[in-house]
Formats: sequence, C-alpha cells, structure tokens
Amino acid sequence: MESLLPILDAITPVDRSLEAKIRAHLDNLTKPVGSLGFLEDLAANYCLMTGNITPQLGKKRIVTFVGDHAVAAEGVSAYPSEVTPQMVYNMLAGGAAINVLTKHIGADLQVVDIGVANPLEGASGLLRRKVKAGTDNMSRGPAMTQEEAIQAILVGVELAHAAADDGVTLLGTGEMGIANTTPSSALYASLIPCPVIEVTGRGTGIDNTRLRHKIKVIERSLEVNANLLSDPLSTLAAVGGLEIAGICGLILAAAAKKLPVVVDGFISSAAALVAMRLSESVLDYLFFSHCSAEAGHRTFFERLGIRPILDLDLRLGEGTGAALAMHVIEGAVKIYNEMATFDSAGVSGKDN
Amino acid sequence: MESLLPILDAITPVDRSLEAKIRAHLDNLTKPVGSLGFLEDLAANYCLMTGNITPQLGKKRIVTFVGDHAVAAEGVSAYPSEVTPQMVYNMLAGGAAINVLTKHIGADLQVVDIGVANPLEGASGLLRRKVKAGTDNMSRGPAMTQEEAIQAILVGVELAHAAADDGVTLLGTGEMGIANTTPSSALYASLIPCPVIEVTGRGTGIDNTRLRHKIKVIERSLEVNANLLSDPLSTLAAVGGLEIAGICGLILAAAAKKLPVVVDGFISSAAALVAMRLSESVLDYLFFSHCSAEAGHRTFFERLGIRPILDLDLRLGEGTGAALAMHVIEGAVKIYNEMATFDSAGVSGKDN
Repeated sequence: MESLLPILDAITPVDRSLEAKIRAHLDNLTKPVGSLGFLEDLAANYCLMTGNITPQLGKKRIVTFVGDHAVAAEGVSAYPSEVTPQMVYNMLAGGAAINVLTKHIGADLQVVDIGVANPLEGASGLLRRKVKAGTDNMSRGPAMTQEEAIQAILVGVELAHAAADDGVTLLGTGEMGIANTTPSSALYASLIPCPVIEVTGRGTGIDNTRLRHKIKVIERSLEVNANLLSDPLSTLAAVGGLEIAGICGLILAAAAKKLPVVVDGFISSAAALVAMRLSESVLDYLFFSHCSAEAGHRTFFERLGIRPILDLDLRLGEGTGAALAMHVIEGAVKIYNEMATFDSAGVSGKDN
Repeated sequence: MESLLPILDAITPVDRSLEAKIRAHLDNLTKPVGSLGFLEDLAANYCLMTGNITPQLGKKRIVTFVGDHAVAAEGVSAYPSEVTPQMVYNMLAGGAAINVLTKHIGADLQVVDIGVANPLEGASGLLRRKVKAGTDNMSRGPAMTQEEAIQAILVGVELAHAAADDGVTLLGTGEMGIANTTPSSALYASLIPCPVIEVTGRGTGIDNTRLRHKIKVIERSLEVNANLLSDPLSTLAAVGGLEIAGICGLILAAAAKKLPVVVDGFISSAAALVAMRLSESVLDYLFFSHCSAEAGHRTFFERLGIRPILDLDLRLGEGTGAALAMHVIEGAVKIYNEMATFDSAGVSGKDN
C-alpha cells in the first residue's frame, strides 16, 4: 500500500474556480447559450481536468489490459478461456473491434498482457507486463494477494505515466479476459454496495440457468472472502482481476497527472469504482463513455449519479465504447477552442 | 406535385431478403454475437439502405439550408431575425459549430440560401438557391404557395443528386433560420398528429411567457390554415419553411438514390416527417442522429417508434448532431467491413 500513497496523495480535486471563466467562454460562442447541451459540459470538464482554460489536444490512446480468471472454470462465461489468448493475437493482428475503432478515431492502441494464463509466445507488439498467469479462483479464496494487486496497479501507473510522457491528452481504458464480468459484478456488489443480483448480467451471452449459477458463484466468492472486503485494495485483490487492477492504476496515475481518462464499459467502470473508493477526487478526472447493455451498469450510474456519454447497447469491452466517446469529447473540446465568438463574428445576441 | 411524382415513385422499400446474410456476417465477426448492440443495427441498416452487403464508404457531406420566417415578427424566438444572415456569414467564415464538427469528422459542408430575407451580398462560398426572401407569416395565412414549396423541395432534390454524383455515401441534413422551431412544431402537430403543446419547446431559449405565446401562435397558424392541411405537401407549404422543404427534398431524392441520410435534430426531423408522409418507404433510408433537448422531439420518436443514435441535450441544429452521429455510423460500417471473422482469426466460438 505504501507504494500507492504518493499517487493517491497527488490526486487533488479540480480547481472549480476556473468554471466561471470556462462557462463565460462557452456562452460567448456563436450559438444560443447552452444549446450544445452535454457537449458543453464535456468541454468544460475537459478544461477543469487539465486545469487549463485554453486546453490543447494532443494524442489519443487506448490501453487494453488482458487477463485471465480461474473462476471461469466454474462455468460463468459463454466462451472458453482459450479465447483470451486467441483474442490477444487477433488484436495484435488488427482484426478486433478495438483495432477498427482506434483506427477510426486516430488513436494509438496498447495491448497489455497483465495476467493471461497462456505464455503468448511470439505475440509481437504485445506489452508484456504479466503479473501472474491469471487470477486464482475467487469462489474458493482470494483471486490475488494484495501484493499482486498492487503490482498490477503499478503496471497501470507506469502506462499512464508513459502516456503523459508521449503527449497523450485523452486516455481510454479497455480490457479483455474471459469471465471478467464476474469479478466486476463482485466488486460492484461489495463497493457500491448492493445485492449481487442488481449488478450481474449475461456477459458475453449466457442463458438464464447460467446467469442464476453466475450469481451464486459471485455470492459464494463474496462469502468465502468476507474477511478481506474491509477496504478497497484488499477487495480488489480478493474478488477483482489483474486487468481490472491495471485499469485502476492507469486511472489513478492519470488523475494524479491531470490527464483526462475515458472509462470504457462495465469492467472498466468496476476498476474506476475501486479507484474512486481509493481516492474520492478521482471522479473529477473521468469521462464515462457509455452505458453498457450488461445488466448492472445502469445501476452503477444511477447509484453514483453519473451520466454516461453514449447509450448504444454495447457489451463488448476492449475499449470500444471509450473509442467512440473519445471522438465526441474531442469534438466538444474543438467546439470550445475553434468556434467564433459573438463579437469576433459580428453576430447579435439574444433579444431583451 | 407532378414534378415530384418521379422521385416519389423511385423510393422503394429496402430489400429485407438481404438481412439474413448481413446478420450472418455480423455474427461471424470476432466478438460475442450482438455485443456491439445498436452499432450492429446501424451497420445492417447501412447495408440495407445501399442494397449492398459489401458496402463501400466514400465522402460524407452535410447540407445546411438557411431560411427566414416572417412568423418571427410574432415574437416566438429569443433572437432577432438579423441573426440569420449573420450566421450565414459566420458559417462561410468557418466560425460556427457545424464548421468545427464537419472538419472534425472529415465531411464537406454546403451552406444553402434557400430563403433568407437578406440578399447576402458578397457571401462567397454560399450556394445561392433562394426560392423566396423568407416565408410569409403563417399565423396570418400560408407561409408559402404550394409552387414555392415544390420549388424548395426541388432545390433539395438537386443537391441530393449532386451529392450522389460527387461520391457522397453518407449525407447529413442541417438548417439554420431564426424562428424555425415554430413551423416545425406546427408540422409535427398537424402530421403526427398531436396537440401543439406536446411538440413545442423553447427553441433558442425563450421563457415561460414567450413559450405560452409561441404555442398560441402555432395554434392560430393551424386554425388560419385549417383548409390547407389536408395533405402533406400543402401542409408543408402552409405551416412549414423553405429550409424545411429543402431538407424534405434532399431526403426524398437521397432515398430514391439509395443514399443513406442522417437526419439532424428537431427541425430536420419535421422535414423527415413530411417526407415520410409523402412516401412511407423513406424511413428505410434514414438514420436519426439524436434526440434534441427541444421539447417535443422525444414525443416524435416515441410516437413513431424510432430510436435516435445520440442523446446529448443538443438543440442547436445546423447539422451538429448529424455530424457526430455520422462518425458513429461510419464506425459501425467499418466494424462490418474490417473486423476479422472467427475462422480467419482462429478464435473459438461459444461453448455449447
């Protein structure tokens, strides 16, 4: 935990005293006041996050963390665990949805092995940061030790720092890992907190029987690890995942660097929730890209009073929702930066 | 009306027999079946619209029609009519929101004077297609003659044909014109049909007193023109607008050419409604970009059972929502075109 304290200490609330100036600029652009709705909020939040009322846009990057979950052996997913390494190779070859969408928006993609069971031989282009060859089965004991969770968080920290150094000004999260909605639901249930059934869905597409079974597996995981759920970090270790810990670290370090983060879907939001429980001010630096079709994501947004940007019934992960939302956020910041003002364009204001 | 019949006759329902093949391809991409949700529907609809199961993306274009409304003299808008020409100059100089967003998505922008009261001297880059120097005051009589409405529709037809000839494969609508939510609400009330109050909002930002007044002006307009509201074309002429008629023509001719159209906000949807009442099959060729913050737009979507792509509280028009949605649609089509299949990527399918 000591290794995380400097990062947590560096996360400070945004300076809300800038908001009046930011809003005055938005109101002076050649459009009716407030007529760009949520886009104006996105632009204002981007300014607040960076602490800059004349923000500059640089590179966009999505970091997709990949990890396995021994709890998959309990039959909680529609796909076998062998799909995790297969999808890594697919992403490295450019064939996955996230490849198409990062290319579409002009963003970099980093694929990170933070905990895949398979050794991923010959996977060229892969960022090799394996902390552990998949988590242990959380329905029988903790998924990770606290040390392993911290190590995975620090992988995310490293990649956030690298992004900042590389001139990234908008950073997206992504993940892939068969069965990873299961630990995510466990984290929501424990950290919101709320009943498991309210935050558990069909993942990649399980039927009713498997869904009932999945809920029982999650409930059992929370019981088995009950004495480890006293703080966010040990909860993450007990019922989380390596890719979730990596995203959590990415978010924490980005927030500490005032680098705006776009949180992808259900699993990334679970990581964001852990980060928010570790540091309340983290939320100031987050955009939530979309409301997933995974049952429970809407519960998360409602309980936390957060408005996601898109609502397209996505439930793929990888960073796909983050990619689409990053383009909207970038558009909002360009509106702020590039539109004419009433004065400069000689446009009349409102009637009195 | 005779001049429109060839276009109306050319609009045929999409060939739904292609859908099985399109869905089979989507289901064979390396992602859980259906996990890209509404994006998959957008891709499938794009294929159906073009009648092509291997669609090619070309240029994107937004056509922004500008017109004035003598009903503005009744005090229904927060801004004076002089803003219409000022905003035309602003758009031509690149300072408006639609300039920023078309540049952001890599689309062309055409700004069309179809009915601005001001002569717009020296407005270089403007497409000059003025049918009339603004509509007449619809609260005292018809806004246009039927001939004028047809002439304005034919301007839209011409520009849709030009877009198809120029290699545009995704066409967005846009508009600008002080007071143009007023005729739009009148069209909704008459063509949905429903009470005026359900489809009338604050436009650019009027207060409660002006909103009550605006509703009365619209109700009076529908009364004064009651004998002209028997068919969609004469309704458009009586209580519509020149830019609305232009958009209607653009939509009709694009549908006839199987060129997918992205409908912008409240005013563009009113034009789409007229087009849908002129030809039922038009709907097959339309994407609705967003649900506007303008009260009544949600009513329209609910009554017609249409799902808009975005919901960002936009209420600016110009084509701004269309621009953002075009990027999402383009991403969906790229997903369809560019992702690897399970076979090609060697990824395992679902467990049985």
